[in-house]
Amino acid sequence: MRFKIREASPNDIDAIVELNEQLADYHRKIDKYYKPGSETRKGFRKHLSEIIRKRNVKILVAETGNKVVGYFIGTIEKAKPYVVPENIGRISDAFVEERYRKSGIGRMMFDELIRWFKKNKIRYIELSVDSRNETGIKAWQKFGFKEFMKRMRLDL
Amino acid sequence: MRFKIREASPNDIDAIVELNEQLADYHRKIDKYYKPGSETRKGFRKHLSEIIRKRNVKILVAETGNKVVGYFIGTIEKAKPYVVPENIGRISDAFVEERYRKSGIGRMMFDELIRWFKKNKIRYIELSVDSRNETGIKAWQKFGFKEFMKRMRLDL
Repeated sequence: MRFKIREASPNDIDAIVELNEQLADYHRKIDKYYKPGSETRKGFRKHLSEIIRKRNVKILVAETGNKVVGYFIGTIEKAKPYVVPENIGRISDAFVEERYRKSGIGRMMFDELIRWFKKNKIRYIELSVDSRNETGIKAWQKFGFKEFMKRMRLDL
Repeated sequence: MRFKIREASPNDIDAIVELNEQLADYHRKIDKYYKPGSETRKGFRKHLSEIIRKRNVKILVAETGNKVVGYFIGTIEKAKPYVVPENIGRISDAFVEERYRKSGIGRMMFDELIRWFKKNKIRYIELSVDSRNETGIKAWQKFGFKEFMKRMRLDL
């Protein structure tokens, strides 16, 4: 199967919203703290439409046979005041449809994002992953990420 | 030793900045990604002066013999769009000077914050703790917090 990695255009919004809905549903299964995709859809579409033209945002899609089967969102943002770098990279979204995984397209999108981050002098990339999302944690570890903080929660 | 827990007033800013500097230096020892206290001091003072009168912020200090030896900062904030609650509580800072630990003052400040969160109909409290800060992780677990996400980082 042949894949093409390219930057998302406004025409891809429907497809990306669809993929994000799957990602939301995956999290919902892990923890009822997350909204199901049916409830995040509308807000995510609005958010996506706003960020897609921003210069500090890079949205990549993986396409095969004219079908978008994965996407990554990277942003360059001001770092917290207590850390050394002024700006950091963030990978806020990363998703590949299940049957297209292990094909290397995640790695291709990731490498492309890293090139963009480096070109913009970014030296640190952060992301958050659910602690029970073993697939995600393993993938990020394979890409060189290390856990450095835990997000904890108390449900009253 | 007798301790008093009370809300911070602008007169406490110097003492809280001092404690925050210790907290920053603790993190700096763990990871050079964090700035030393000498570099966070000024920005933190400005930040603290801004938030101290905000209605969605509660800053508590623990005092003994007129000396402030610990502080907690809780905020009520809009939750991420992909989670169920509209607002969540956040504990952004928590610190007790080493020699005053295990005296119960952390618990006293925590309980007071929880009362405030509950009064404001907050049902979920989040916080971030460095993965290598075992003292912190154990304390939060004792207070009922559970890890639900990992923050990961890639240093290019």
